[in-house]
Amino acid sequence: MTQYHPLSEREAIDFARTIPDLFAAGAELSCREIGDGNLNLVFHISDPASGASIILKQALPYAKVVGESWPLSLDRARIESEALQIEGSLCPDLVPRVYKYVPELALTVMEDLSDHIIMRKGLIERRTYPEFAGHIGRFLARTLFFTSDLGMNQQEKKERTKQFVNPDLCKITEDLIFDHPYTNADTNSFDEAIRDEAEALWSDTALHLEVARLRHGFLTKAQALLHGDLHTGSIFVTESSTKVIDPEFAYYGPMGFDIGAVLANLLLNFAGQEGWSPDANSRAAYRDYLLRTAKDVWTTFEAEFRALWNAHNVDRISGTRGFQDVYVEQLLQDTIGYAGCKMVRRVVGLAHVADIDTIPDAGAKERAQRLALAIGKSLIMRNRQATSIDELIDIAEKAIR
Amino acid sequence: MTQYHPLSEREAIDFARTIPDLFAAGAELSCREIGDGNLNLVFHISDPASGASIILKQALPYAKVVGESWPLSLDRARIESEALQIEGSLCPDLVPRVYKYVPELALTVMEDLSDHIIMRKGLIERRTYPEFAGHIGRFLARTLFFTSDLGMNQQEKKERTKQFVNPDLCKITEDLIFDHPYTNADTNSFDEAIRDEAEALWSDTALHLEVARLRHGFLTKAQALLHGDLHTGSIFVTESSTKVIDPEFAYYGPMGFDIGAVLANLLLNFAGQEGWSPDANSRAAYRDYLLRTAKDVWTTFEAEFRALWNAHNVDRISGTRGFQDVYVEQLLQDTIGYAGCKMVRRVVGLAHVADIDTIPDAGAKERAQRLALAIGKSLIMRNRQATSIDELIDIAEKAIR
Repeated sequence: MTQYHPLSEREAIDFARTIPDLFAAGAELSCREIGDGNLNLVFHISDPASGASIILKQALPYAKVVGESWPLSLDRARIESEALQIEGSLCPDLVPRVYKYVPELALTVMEDLSDHIIMRKGLIERRTYPEFAGHIGRFLARTLFFTSDLGMNQQEKKERTKQFVNPDLCKITEDLIFDHPYTNADTNSFDEAIRDEAEALWSDTALHLEVARLRHGFLTKAQALLHGDLHTGSIFVTESSTKVIDPEFAYYGPMGFDIGAVLANLLLNFAGQEGWSPDANSRAAYRDYLLRTAKDVWTTFEAEFRALWNAHNVDRISGTRGFQDVYVEQLLQDTIGYAGCKMVRRVVGLAHVADIDTIPDAGAKERAQRLALAIGKSLIMRNRQATSIDELIDIAEKAIR
Repeated sequence: MTQYHPLSEREAIDFARTIPDLFAAGAELSCREIGDGNLNLVFHISDPASGASIILKQALPYAKVVGESWPLSLDRARIESEALQIEGSLCPDLVPRVYKYVPELALTVMEDLSDHIIMRKGLIERRTYPEFAGHIGRFLARTLFFTSDLGMNQQEKKERTKQFVNPDLCKITEDLIFDHPYTNADTNSFDEAIRDEAEALWSDTALHLEVARLRHGFLTKAQALLHGDLHTGSIFVTESSTKVIDPEFAYYGPMGFDIGAVLANLLLNFAGQEGWSPDANSRAAYRDYLLRTAKDVWTTFEAEFRALWNAHNVDRISGTRGFQDVYVEQLLQDTIGYAGCKMVRRVVGLAHVADIDTIPDAGAKERAQRLALAIGKSLIMRNRQATSIDELIDIAEKAIR
């Protein structure tokens, strides 16, 4: 078992039995591989008799995308488990518990969250999550503040940036978010119906200039330990619980990239309501819920982040009157810019979102795609003028008028 | 010899004999320890008969400053030798050649530059260096461009940031440049004659706000591999040659920090001319030389940096029309801001410069100190408005009117 190889279900069960105090000796365990098979194996192992269960997640040494295979470092399993443990120490209720990490197998043993559903699925079903904004706002504030130069020893932070150097996974983001959608790249994927939109993106120099600034920030701004891929497919929810999973893209980057990811995915669903809401009234109501949630995510984040700064700032000169306002405004602008980049790529780039892609009606799907692009482009173009989260809300509201 | 211990002169000579093709077997070698004894031992070993010579530089595990001893990681010797080798591969004529690095002794064996003098000394003697601006402009352009996301593979750059994580030495900069001068810190050191200036610095919130922004950039902006301590005491010169030494502060940071260090030290000497020029005419002439040099450093840097960008940019989207101008303007602003920080700390902080400190006449010294502070503060306050290097020249010229 100690040499790396993809585990069989049998081996996964044997391994699960070694976790103390979980399954009774001799329990009849069942195992299902529930990963999407692209990047990882995910084994769900349970004892139907006791109800006890556990997840084994094993990284694969490649990524399968559109039939191709990209080699990917297994080191991402270490990064994921270490990031989960840091997030867990800061927000124990908001991430799955990690029981064990086995480096030689790139294997993490963690809490089973089968009673939760993937938030993207919940949003497509037009459910509401009244606790979500508060939870994720707190998650963002605490994980970003306490891993930054504001909230931790600045010399230890430098060692952490080293621990989370993550070239392979950052490369995916750099290519698929900050490059390919803006040129005629082979990896791009979009419906012929919106070819005009895709081609317009490729020649929009003013847009490229803003994307270049945001890309430069992604490449150089080592502000805090990011989750790095915080879309609604990386969040498990129930009505009362939120769990952030899968931080394998974790690295030291600009805080706004994580906050923007959350907002972008709410707005992608907002666009997708072209295809999901049964009538205009319910569409307006659900969109209203999504925009309120987006605003609440930011305002909760901002309030908690400022409170942490006031109570726990370790950087004397960052305590200068006025600097917190400067810092938070820059965060807001980054957030809006990165949210825009995250939306655009989900329509014309390699990886799409089910909120839009699975809309059955072709006309509604096309309208949703154009809407997502319009919002995304406006967010990118207006990011540096933003002084309030109302800028983002305003862009979304005007786009549906 | 393989366990770390500070070498004796005898051991240094024995070690030097092991370097191939340098000294004749049986040559009578002489050795002088010429370091300042604060951070490193520096042995100059020569054969008077042949004229051959060499430098052995060994890091000490502490820094002696104002009678105190700060522990310092020996890893800085690795960082210095690795940075020297990268700089040497990019600008072989502008750094000393490294013959050997011995990690267990924190020892670097390198070219002897005794035919050069420390530039600070040359400037105090009011010598001129017609090649300097061209040399250092090229050094800055090539070392900063080719270690950045513009000039090297972006995934390899991430591994390099890891290689040059340098907490101990960065801590010195963070404290002594970006913090202590702006508060009543124990480490500060200034003449009683300018206590009013020091106290004014401690309560100047508008200045602190700009320093906080620049400090944040120093902490987070991993743009390029910096020298990290590029003052005129780290530069050896002759009329026709320039050699940059001592990159033990090397780390991935904002490019403007290195460029600003060069300009700040020219301007510190500019202020020091209160005490060195024999009359008003020669003072004006030498100051004119210094300002021309400062301007030439920037313009050479800018021209070479843009030429490298046009020829060797590896980042497709950074090729967007207009982005280079945005980037260079941001560099200019950072340069001016960091130049200001570097000047202020040399008057009221722990480490001063001989250009001002050794002025014999007390009145002239005080005028020089006030002038350096006035220029430094203006550079800090005006950095974000700068659109041309003339902003810096203008600040210096107005300060002496």
